[in-house]
Amino acid sequence: MGKEFDLLSYGEVLLRLSPEGTERLDDSETFTKRVGGAELNVATGVALLGLRTGIISKLPNNKLGQFAKKRIRFSGVSDDYLVYEDGKDARLGLYYYELGRYPRKPSVVYDRAFTSFSRSDISDFPENMYSSARLFHVSGVTLALCEETRNTAIEMIHKFKEAGALISFDVNFRGNLWTGDEARECIEKLLPYVDIFFCSEDTARLTFGKTGTAEEIMKSFTEEYPISIVASTQRIVHSPMHHTFGSVIYSRETDTFYSEKPYERIQVVDRIGSGDAYCSGVLYALLSEPGNYQRAVEFGNAQAAVKNTVPGDMPGSDLDEIESVIRDHHSTGYQSEMKR
Amino acid sequence: MGKEFDLLSYGEVLLRLSPEGTERLDDSETFTKRVGGAELNVATGVALLGLRTGIISKLPNNKLGQFAKKRIRFSGVSDDYLVYEDGKDARLGLYYYELGRYPRKPSVVYDRAFTSFSRSDISDFPENMYSSARLFHVSGVTLALCEETRNTAIEMIHKFKEAGALISFDVNFRGNLWTGDEARECIEKLLPYVDIFFCSEDTARLTFGKTGTAEEIMKSFTEEYPISIVASTQRIVHSPMHHTFGSVIYSRETDTFYSEKPYERIQVVDRIGSGDAYCSGVLYALLSEPGNYQRAVEFGNAQAAVKNTVPGDMPGSDLDEIESVIRDHHSTGYQSEMKR
Amino acid sequence: MGKEFDLLSYGEVLLRLSPEGTERLDDSETFTKRVGGAELNVATGVALLGLRTGIISKLPNNKLGQFAKKRIRFSGVSDDYLVYEDGKDARLGLYYYELGRYPRKPSVVYDRAFTSFSRSDISDFPENMYSSARLFHVSGVTLALCEETRNTAIEMIHKFKEAGALISFDVNFRGNLWTGDEARECIEKLLPYVDIFFCSEDTARLTFGKTGTAEEIMKSFTEEYPISIVASTQRIVHSPMHHTFGSVIYSRETDTFYSEKPYERIQVVDRIGSGDAYCSGVLYALLSEPGNYQRAVEFGNAQAAVKNTVPGDMPGSDLDEIESVIRDHHSTGYQSEMKR
Amino acid sequence: MGKEFDLLSYGEVLLRLSPEGTERLDDSETFTKRVGGAELNVATGVALLGLRTGIISKLPNNKLGQFAKKRIRFSGVSDDYLVYEDGKDARLGLYYYELGRYPRKPSVVYDRAFTSFSRSDISDFPENMYSSARLFHVSGVTLALCEETRNTAIEMIHKFKEAGALISFDVNFRGNLWTGDEARECIEKLLPYVDIFFCSEDTARLTFGKTGTAEEIMKSFTEEYPISIVASTQRIVHSPMHHTFGSVIYSRETDTFYSEKPYERIQVVDRIGSGDAYCSGVLYALLSEPGNYQRAVEFGNAQAAVKNTVPGDMPGSDLDEIESVIRDHHSTGYQSEMKR
Amino acid sequence: MGKEFDLLSYGEVLLRLSPEGTERLDDSETFTKRVGGAELNVATGVALLGLRTGIISKLPNNKLGQFAKKRIRFSGVSDDYLVYEDGKDARLGLYYYELGRYPRKPSVVYDRAFTSFSRSDISDFPENMYSSARLFHVSGVTLALCEETRNTAIEMIHKFKEAGALISFDVNFRGNLWTGDEARECIEKLLPYVDIFFCSEDTARLTFGKTGTAEEIMKSFTEEYPISIVASTQRIVHSPMHHTFGSVIYSRETDTFYSEKPYERIQVVDRIGSGDAYCSGVLYALLSEPGNYQRAVEFGNAQAAVKNTVPGDMPGSDLDEIESVIRDHHSTGYQSEMKR
Amino acid sequence: MGKEFDLLSYGEVLLRLSPEGTERLDDSETFTKRVGGAELNVATGVALLGLRTGIISKLPNNKLGQFAKKRIRFSGVSDDYLVYEDGKDARLGLYYYELGRYPRKPSVVYDRAFTSFSRSDISDFPENMYSSARLFHVSGVTLALCEETRNTAIEMIHKFKEAGALISFDVNFRGNLWTGDEARECIEKLLPYVDIFFCSEDTARLTFGKTGTAEEIMKSFTEEYPISIVASTQRIVHSPMHHTFGSVIYSRETDTFYSEKPYERIQVVDRIGSGDAYCSGVLYALLSEPGNYQRAVEFGNAQAAVKNTVPGDMPGSDLDEIESVIRDHHSTGYQSEMKR
Repeated sequence: MGKEFDLLSYGEVLLRLSPEGTERLDDSETFTKRVGGAELNVATGVALLGLRTGIISKLPNNKLGQFAKKRIRFSGVSDDYLVYEDGKDARLGLYYYELGRYPRKPSVVYDRAFTSFSRSDISDFPENMYSSARLFHVSGVTLALCEETRNTAIEMIHKFKEAGALISFDVNFRGNLWTGDEARECIEKLLPYVDIFFCSEDTARLTFGKTGTAEEIMKSFTEEYPISIVASTQRIVHSPMHHTFGSVIYSRETDTFYSEKPYERIQVVDRIGSGDAYCSGVLYALLSEPGNYQRAVEFGNAQAAVKNTVPGDMPGSDLDEIESVIRDHHSTGYQSEMKR
Repeated sequence: MGKEFDLLSYGEVLLRLSPEGTERLDDSETFTKRVGGAELNVATGVALLGLRTGIISKLPNNKLGQFAKKRIRFSGVSDDYLVYEDGKDARLGLYYYELGRYPRKPSVVYDRAFTSFSRSDISDFPENMYSSARLFHVSGVTLALCEETRNTAIEMIHKFKEAGALISFDVNFRGNLWTGDEARECIEKLLPYVDIFFCSEDTARLTFGKTGTAEEIMKSFTEEYPISIVASTQRIVHSPMHHTFGSVIYSRETDTFYSEKPYERIQVVDRIGSGDAYCSGVLYALLSEPGNYQRAVEFGNAQAAVKNTVPGDMPGSDLDEIESVIRDHHSTGYQSEMKR
Repeated sequence: MGKEFDLLSYGEVLLRLSPEGTERLDDSETFTKRVGGAELNVATGVALLGLRTGIISKLPNNKLGQFAKKRIRFSGVSDDYLVYEDGKDARLGLYYYELGRYPRKPSVVYDRAFTSFSRSDISDFPENMYSSARLFHVSGVTLALCEETRNTAIEMIHKFKEAGALISFDVNFRGNLWTGDEARECIEKLLPYVDIFFCSEDTARLTFGKTGTAEEIMKSFTEEYPISIVASTQRIVHSPMHHTFGSVIYSRETDTFYSEKPYERIQVVDRIGSGDAYCSGVLYALLSEPGNYQRAVEFGNAQAAVKNTVPGDMPGSDLDEIESVIRDHHSTGYQSEMKR
Repeated sequence: MGKEFDLLSYGEVLLRLSPEGTERLDDSETFTKRVGGAELNVATGVALLGLRTGIISKLPNNKLGQFAKKRIRFSGVSDDYLVYEDGKDARLGLYYYELGRYPRKPSVVYDRAFTSFSRSDISDFPENMYSSARLFHVSGVTLALCEETRNTAIEMIHKFKEAGALISFDVNFRGNLWTGDEARECIEKLLPYVDIFFCSEDTARLTFGKTGTAEEIMKSFTEEYPISIVASTQRIVHSPMHHTFGSVIYSRETDTFYSEKPYERIQVVDRIGSGDAYCSGVLYALLSEPGNYQRAVEFGNAQAAVKNTVPGDMPGSDLDEIESVIRDHHSTGYQSEMKR
Repeated sequence: MGKEFDLLSYGEVLLRLSPEGTERLDDSETFTKRVGGAELNVATGVALLGLRTGIISKLPNNKLGQFAKKRIRFSGVSDDYLVYEDGKDARLGLYYYELGRYPRKPSVVYDRAFTSFSRSDISDFPENMYSSARLFHVSGVTLALCEETRNTAIEMIHKFKEAGALISFDVNFRGNLWTGDEARECIEKLLPYVDIFFCSEDTARLTFGKTGTAEEIMKSFTEEYPISIVASTQRIVHSPMHHTFGSVIYSRETDTFYSEKPYERIQVVDRIGSGDAYCSGVLYALLSEPGNYQRAVEFGNAQAAVKNTVPGDMPGSDLDEIESVIRDHHSTGYQSEMKR
Repeated sequence: MGKEFDLLSYGEVLLRLSPEGTERLDDSETFTKRVGGAELNVATGVALLGLRTGIISKLPNNKLGQFAKKRIRFSGVSDDYLVYEDGKDARLGLYYYELGRYPRKPSVVYDRAFTSFSRSDISDFPENMYSSARLFHVSGVTLALCEETRNTAIEMIHKFKEAGALISFDVNFRGNLWTGDEARECIEKLLPYVDIFFCSEDTARLTFGKTGTAEEIMKSFTEEYPISIVASTQRIVHSPMHHTFGSVIYSRETDTFYSEKPYERIQVVDRIGSGDAYCSGVLYALLSEPGNYQRAVEFGNAQAAVKNTVPGDMPGSDLDEIESVIRDHHSTGYQSEMKR
């Protein structure tokens, strides 16, 4: 082991602004400010569970960039690989988020064009970074944002792979950023480098044109590419306030599918980032106890389930909380109603 | 068409004060201040969907009256027919509202006696107002408040009718303002002038002594009076947090009943004003696409359903939101969980 | 001694609504809710300093009345002589308050007509109330509000006097409630019953037509009427944020004027109720150490000065705080900057 | 009866700090501050329903102690038997509370060691206190806290009993304060003095080693000890947001079990203190209408059910609210959806 | 007269986000959201004083654009000439604002590049707009933002001039948007069209290279260009909390300089927009009582002084408030300390 | 230099709870939660200016401890040397803080007895810690708290000294924690190890019995002990809202006194921690540019002055802010009023 970081990820850091409670974006007088981003959320989840992680990103060199940096540190993630852009066009991407209540859906307004991150370049980061991490994680969002970040991400994958890191990739398909065809074409070039692959059944079918059962699809990725682990989440959205969440992990090594009963009717407070939380649970488990795939699925599910109940993009659970959620999930006897 | 306003309505504008979240009126240290009123809510709903509306009312000439005016403009409604009362007795009516959670019901404390509106008089408003609108709407609340506003409302109905406007009337029966007998006696005198009539089945039975099926009752109003359209809402209150809402519209012209499946288990944030929102949806549809009664029932239901999920008395939806709620309501295939 | 209460006062209890900080009444989305009233403020100040006091008033029998009662108890004042009015016209008076910043003045919008208190009557209160208090306090506000409360206040003065209580009266002239002539005519009839008389120099000149030096004026009241003590405050308003406050007390018994150096450039947070706080300081001192007039002027000034620094209408100081403010005010040596 | 208080209780008063809404203890920037405590909650519930109650406790003589005292008075409870501790080690116990959402449980962090209350002693309170109350209530929490409060509570039970008061005891077992064995040993010594005994079925089995049906267990306590009434609550925790609550009362006098249908799927806002609210409902009913055990069970259930819907530890309902909740619970016909 | 609008202005509408009170941008958890913009602020000030104004601008067609529109209407300004941009790059400009306290200065972080407004074009607006207003106002900010808005502004000036409107121009120099040389070169081309010219002495010297006394400078502009009125403000910044504000107006028609004593040590709450408020006061006065230049300087000063005491970018005063501030400013006798 | 940390400090981390704005501790419903502590504040100030620092402390292993850790990281300070205590008596010290307004002083209620930190022991920390830092800082607060922390601090001083670190000591005398005699006796034993000594003139006279001029006193410390640098602050408290702050530094090496004109009438938002901020400015300057004593006094003064304007205990300034404050302080020409 001996590397400084267990996980590094490369992605955009966004400011999120949301009105209080069920208030609406086009009314109300205050915003709650939070910080998130697909890859940051993963790094945070793994850090709070106890491993050493860092985020690779580019922020504006102003007070908003400072705020983002401080919140990143707050969440246990290293700011060693944050770089800063000067100048009056330097900007932090942001998005506005409004909760939903049936039949009104949650809604998001993005304002993430022309950001400092979109100008992040491979030359911004030191060469010794690539040998400092056991695992590198990136998601399809970073690929989809713009050509610059796509190229940078691809180069990073190559360099981390070369330096011996595991590569983790989450498709995280966003129809508002690119088309399915663009996504497939780009991602297929990456898959030869990927060790751990997160892809939902829907995306596999729609974007990659896969057919067959869900299990056949998962396995097929490991047959076509040197992928070791495929993880696939299943979410049922009963309403903005109630989701059911489960997942399946396939390991090529053991040629086995791992799963458990899903978390039913999670009481959703804030669903943003719960997919990233899932990745963080799985990656934490794989990094802390390699080969224990059943634990990986349980940590992934528990992280995702709990994240849904927590405001903000980033997971907030420590190891003690996740272990006790897993214990309760599998317990059949008396459970205390409160932790005290 | 060619008239300046699609809809004008006459009614009281109230300040609403509510403690934050689930706090109680007799504890807590802050109030959220909002503005509403049965007829204003209707005008707002129609305005935000895209038509030109105005509210006819009387406010105190002080900062509270100014606040009300500003919020009326905020919501897209014209303040052209607001008049102001000077003097130290000038007052804005208000009410205090506390949310409920089963088994505790929502509760309201009214403080709306002796208001400036209760002294509004037909002479306060210009004669050319009556020819400036395609439709005039008023509700039973205005009739019930006091003799002055009742007389003014009745005179306005006569004058608007004479000037060629459609007359829309919502019974909106409130047992705390008048008795069923008082209501019936007063309203029956108005019905000969009414074109669009909103009346729930319960009210029809209890207040107007109607018998027979719900459909028979609706139709009977158009037989006794020259009413063109009768709309009747059906709300099931599962708990303060969950309502089911649907409605039926009868058109004399087509001799047809229009309806759709109700919105089941709406996740209620604030149910105040959802009946008014219903009227606004129906009236918007009828004004923007006359004769399309099915669309009217769908717009009414969607407006009411969404209003329940939005804090405050007034509807907050634009056309895009309502159309997408209707689309989702009728869709059977895959639905994205979020608008982005 | 042996009486149950050291002080009872009769007056209106009002809900105060103010926007947060420097926000304006006709904008902003929240109100802070507080409870106050000239006589209640006096009873509170005396209670928090350690004596037993109660407020005589009439509240609506609804949640707002309950809130007022709870806050009265919170502040150490007895609710034994609160009575409640049922019915839909029962209402709690209220006022809206907006802070000032030079050159913008603080402003108040009253909504205190037609309140339950305005219908309070001598028959609402038990006969044994009059023998339960050492001192009865009332202010000109209660006389000015309406005929009913004026008559009730006058009768109470007679009955308390008869039962052996001291009578304290604060002119508290409000030009928006009555004219100077009305005030003088009414108050002059009361002065034969008054023992402790609070009247500013300006009011003495303008309303009572007094001439001469301030000291001559104060003394003249004790010559014309059987008044024992006259207290007169002097406030200099440098700006909404800075006031200077001092006072003079004249005792007929000792034929002496008592004063001390004023509090200079008080850092005003909320000046409402600081005149009432003054009365409370003086009355507390006179009741707890009769005859010590110098202490009375010091307690009055300190209560008023500190009240200006505290949000809300009511004083909030306990004995320890007032004594330490007085000590600091007279100290010439080193002072710690903080209480810890 | 002629005693000054209907109920006195002895217990710790705690400051509760909770983040807003669903925010977490280890994030967020504000705390809502509230006051509670098992015995105080009982005294509050009984007071707000209309009887005279007081809390016996010891607070630090600082601003936090003042705050606690003010909130106690706010809630209608007498502060006559509060005593204060001076000195820099004087402290108010506190606890931090975080709401839960499935699958995340509510959690509590206690900081209640070394408090002023833990040093409260029988000599702190006057001898005439014991004859001033019709009923004395204490819970197992006070026994479990530390030896000093245990001894004081036991002595108080003896003295109140001797002075003719009824003794009410709620086991309220807390595994984080003592073991089941410690609890049983201590409580069994007290039971000979207890008239009204609150004990859940689970606690009876686990702590007292009872066997048989729930009804047999309840009855057995009255056979072994001179207990008149045994009350046992049943709570089903569907999720942090939904509880079902019911109870059974056994009266030795009538040898009858009293119950009603439980409140199903209560919409929980804050479950803290709902057990205490239950005691308060039962005790209010027994004190205001002795012998009407059916009413006792109905008041207990309604208080507990409503408390779950109200933020804070203390019940907030007046008699009117509880009676209308009971009426609705038993009503089979039309119910208005709102109180107005 | 007879034109629909008294004033139209063309400029960017910005969302302002500021932490509460004295909190900092890189800490704290909430932002207050407000709407402003140099030209919008002017239109608002004139509208609230009682004239008909509108803002010409381009907003994103999303919820943030809707919010801006609603707040514009809230402030009495017409939204008739707002146009909307679709697409995912459509964005509302925003800036972050942090208050100062000596020795910490207020600070601003702009995020206003690439906005929808920066793509607003002369073809976005209807031709009949130019004949609908008595006066057109624009500021140097709009010229400095980018080439597109500069060109659009210049064309609008030509078209409004041609249609008979007065042209008002405020230099409003911003060193972070362009250099002094760029500004001078651009503005000098416009001055032949300008009727009312706002330019501070500093800017005149530094940007336009003027020399001589302040009065000579002001007059010189009217000699070189067909400018009728030159207004020049003088602000002394004692600290972030205290400013002194005054101004001089020169009228070519009367060849006279108008001024009054400045407002000394204004208690600044929010100084943003106070220069725009000045313009609004002057323009209101000139439009409502042409030729009364003394009144113009008094209205300008009072608007600016009061705006400094009000949170947000936009002025909030109505005619009554400004007139009473002017009255107090010139009064030498007794002044009530509060408006009630 | 090659050591991992530029500065380590050992001290208690406290939770601070304060009511919003000018609200009072014994009223109001919310607390703002912040984290601070004399030594932590110093480490934070140095970290935000750009050096690597860490805090040595002991926290409870619960969510409050987690919160403290997160805020420490947020502020740029390393959590490498935080240790955690398990068990139900583990507690985070806290204090309650209320702002002052003249004539009401700020006030503090401490609740810091029996904390986890008070049980921190030399054995809790690894031996290699002592060689990882260039400078070790501690204050008199840690010595005064209790015997355990005093002993631990003394041992740490010895160990850090031995490992080659500079020792910085701030007397920070607190009369509520120990007497002057206790302080002198303890501190005199430490002075032989101290390199940088922070001691105000008052403390030098009162606690150490020094006489002579301020300069003589400062110099005398370096004569009696091998102290290199003595820094002494001078604060004038005009009112809770206005302080003047300056300081003098004496260097034995150069035998020179360094100072500059004080910051006059700082607009105080929160004075807590401004003395610690001073230390941080001085230490930052000495560590980043050794020997530049004039820069040290300027950085110390600027940090302290700015800290007074920032809410919370910890400094919040980065290098850019402090340098620009220093520049403005010495500038004599035109200054922009705002940073943008």
